Amino acid sequence: MSTAALPADFLRAIAESFPADFLTREPAELQEYGRDWTRVYAPAPGAVVFPRTTEEVARFVALCHQHRVAVVPSGGRTGLAGGAVAMRGEVVLSLKRMTRMEPVDLLGNTVRVQAGAVTEGVHQHCAPHGLTWPVDFASKGSSTVGGNIATNAGGVKVIRYGLTRQWVLGLQVVTAQGQVLELNGALEKNNTGADLRQLFIGSEGTLGVITEATLKLTRLPGKQDVFLFAVPDVAAVLRLFRDARQAPLVLSAYEFFTDKCLARVQRHRKLRSPFEAPSGCYVLLESEGGDPAAVEAWLGSLFERGLVTDGTQAQGAAQAQELWSLRESISESLSATGVLHKNDISLPVANLEAFCAELDAVFASRYPGWEICLFGHIGDGNLHVNVMKPDAVEKADFFAHAKQSDHAMFDLVRKHGGSISAEHGIGLLKKDYLDYTRAPGELELLRTLKRALDPAGILNPGKILDA
Amino acid sequence: MSTAALPADFLRAIAESFPADFLTREPAELQEYGRDWTRVYAPAPGAVVFPRTTEEVARFVALCHQHRVAVVPSGGRTGLAGGAVAMRGEVVLSLKRMTRMEPVDLLGNTVRVQAGAVTEGVHQHCAPHGLTWPVDFASKGSSTVGGNIATNAGGVKVIRYGLTRQWVLGLQVVTAQGQVLELNGALEKNNTGADLRQLFIGSEGTLGVITEATLKLTRLPGKQDVFLFAVPDVAAVLRLFRDARQAPLVLSAYEFFTDKCLARVQRHRKLRSPFEAPSGCYVLLESEGGDPAAVEAWLGSLFERGLVTDGTQAQGAAQAQELWSLRESISESLSATGVLHKNDISLPVANLEAFCAELDAVFASRYPGWEICLFGHIGDGNLHVNVMKPDAVEKADFFAHAKQSDHAMFDLVRKHGGSISAEHGIGLLKKDYLDYTRAPGELELLRTLKRALDPAGILNPGKILDA
Repeated sequence: MSTAALPADFLRAIAESFPADFLTREPAELQEYGRDWTRVYAPAPGAVVFPRTTEEVARFVALCHQHRVAVVPSGGRTGLAGGAVAMRGEVVLSLKRMTRMEPVDLLGNTVRVQAGAVTEGVHQHCAPHGLTWPVDFASKGSSTVGGNIATNAGGVKVIRYGLTRQWVLGLQVVTAQGQVLELNGALEKNNTGADLRQLFIGSEGTLGVITEATLKLTRLPGKQDVFLFAVPDVAAVLRLFRDARQAPLVLSAYEFFTDKCLARVQRHRKLRSPFEAPSGCYVLLESEGGDPAAVEAWLGSLFERGLVTDGTQAQGAAQAQELWSLRESISESLSATGVLHKNDISLPVANLEAFCAELDAVFASRYPGWEICLFGHIGDGNLHVNVMKPDAVEKADFFAHAKQSDHAMFDLVRKHGGSISAEHGIGLLKKDYLDYTRAPGELELLRTLKRALDPAGILNPGKILDA
Repeated sequence: MSTAALPADFLRAIAESFPADFLTREPAELQEYGRDWTRVYAPAPGAVVFPRTTEEVARFVALCHQHRVAVVPSGGRTGLAGGAVAMRGEVVLSLKRMTRMEPVDLLGNTVRVQAGAVTEGVHQHCAPHGLTWPVDFASKGSSTVGGNIATNAGGVKVIRYGLTRQWVLGLQVVTAQGQVLELNGALEKNNTGADLRQLFIGSEGTLGVITEATLKLTRLPGKQDVFLFAVPDVAAVLRLFRDARQAPLVLSAYEFFTDKCLARVQRHRKLRSPFEAPSGCYVLLESEGGDPAAVEAWLGSLFERGLVTDGTQAQGAAQAQELWSLRESISESLSATGVLHKNDISLPVANLEAFCAELDAVFASRYPGWEICLFGHIGDGNLHVNVMKPDAVEKADFFAHAKQSDHAMFDLVRKHGGSISAEHGIGLLKKDYLDYTRAPGELELLRTLKRALDPAGILNPGKILDA
């Protein structure tokens, strides 16, 4: 579908019944709103619209339904799987003007916000009350509540708080027919048949458009301790994890990265490793609470029991930030120091060790001598696998080869009961690989749901799966 | 449909391809397996079957699909809304023989069990490892994992741990066509399209039959403190709740009951109130952790600030159990000392005070002089509302009147954004009231889902809604 393909009577109806600034076809705006952070697809939307209210969204979607115009719902466009890309003349439905936040409900510990509210803005709105919406990741300054919910966003605190799904009490959704549904209000408990909220959380805009949400809040964490440990390999990362889960503290993060990641962070960000000797792997552990003497004793025992080879604890907030920087700079440092092919996979934690060992063999045969940078939220079974392009290989060859080689890795993912997308979603980028994680019966059921909720196929068509 | 209506060729197929003890039509067993704890419907199933494996369940459901025989999935039959009742010649599919539990996975903190495993059995299976499945309520000695998941069970620890939904990693489901789906394996993170597990959790056996689950476990709680406070009224219960949520401790239960509940518990169980003077309401607060000095200071401040009129802290496990007994004996004591009409509703916590005030007016006009016993998990917005039959009123009149009067209460529930069933579900008992909580668009979507997943309408027909 090209830009010219938007029906004239559809555009006329828009012009007649919406404000003048509702729709744009400015080339620069089409470029900007047609893509997300994935950056591998050429944007080509037919138009972009900017509603201010749910009523406008509903009226607009009803019009799209009537004229069979494809709609791409769009939040902060920080997605990494192309879920918000419009490359076939679709109309981008941007929620950017819908940023209203209601006052925090201090009895229910909830807040009602429009879908376009920015994640960090919600944090700032709630913090003065000692509360937070514990959905937290690097793109929080741009990502929106609607986008987070539509992608069931993860991040660095999942081990403590779970995924976004867990922090949504109520959802206002516009259906593919332009009907407004208010799902679950502000209720903690409501066992009255299937929980319809759940259908829309994580559906990447293919089943409905999220316009507002009542968010569940929790107390801001108390004092947190941040540690960095050096361990020889992934097996040791997992041994330490098992031990830490039984330790006298509450884990709020358990992140790992390899020496290759750290080397690139040091090169790009000029950061210093806190350790003198290099090590195969590093673990960033953040914890909250626990009796100080008991925590101290546990820490001391880690060396005695050979669970870590080196370790450091941040003294104060500045040092804690320094340790976190080592972990949080990885993504940026890999991109800045080379060309890479990314994957975001997950495994049952119990299968991680066997998986990683077998993955080494795949890497050795598929990418002989290539540099592999592994890091991730390993406490959730989530690995970010990054293959770096060797200087001697052409870019096009590299990507063709890497994409081809994904099949070998995904075979292993399937064998070990894992997922080809832990937190980034499927969008366009992983669509062709979906059957590595979803059995034929599941794919059939996903299609059944799509047909039942969006029979005309106007909502984010071609994302997750083809109808 | 009567017993005789089971097709002869269906029964013949069962006899030919399943073990001899697979199906029973013994009158005593039909009586036993045709009902749940609701006890207001006369059981009349056509047969009961007892599969031992998922393969048998799948083969059996496929046969039912082929012959258009209605199936009622059945666990511990502790439900309170008639969800497991078979009163129209259906075949009860009992999971009671499917009780296998695999060894606890100590790295992933998970355990895989069959649907017929009893809740308390799972607790006992996990406890030696310092782990628990934090789904906990009075019927844990009979309720099963499959039933808990199919009803998204609540209980007394929801404020700390959330509903059952949150503690299910993977689900094995047999569809209405007899197909086996393995949903999500043992993955914490898996963003690959709509989360199909969620469809089946809380669907009361109307969309699929749950046969196995991978449960997410958590550490057994540490030392817990149990307090009982006396406060004058519901408004004071909520003021204390707001304060307690900001207190230097972790709430693991916040339960309330009125003086009328306590009086009946004292009468029936011969338990003593720990307080000399009676009070309008009581709060049972259980907490974990917190700096002892800070907790002490907070407790002291409750009296100074007028948040409580009396209070006691359990000294040791025996006293903690005594305080808990006051709360946990309510249901039994109400039934033992009178005839009652129950409701299990929820409201946004922020609306509870206004709701309760307006409810008083409804009670005064609808039940002049009748005794109302209120208790519940008020920290989750969940109220159990019990109307006691006055001696002078005939039983039949009482129930007719109470059922009729529910409409007035549910009008208020709707007005305040509440739910007519917080945790018990809809089943048969609340079906006629579903539209107080679900808008027409939601009901339509629930029907769309039912038709999409069970087009022949064989799974628990007539439960939640009529097709």
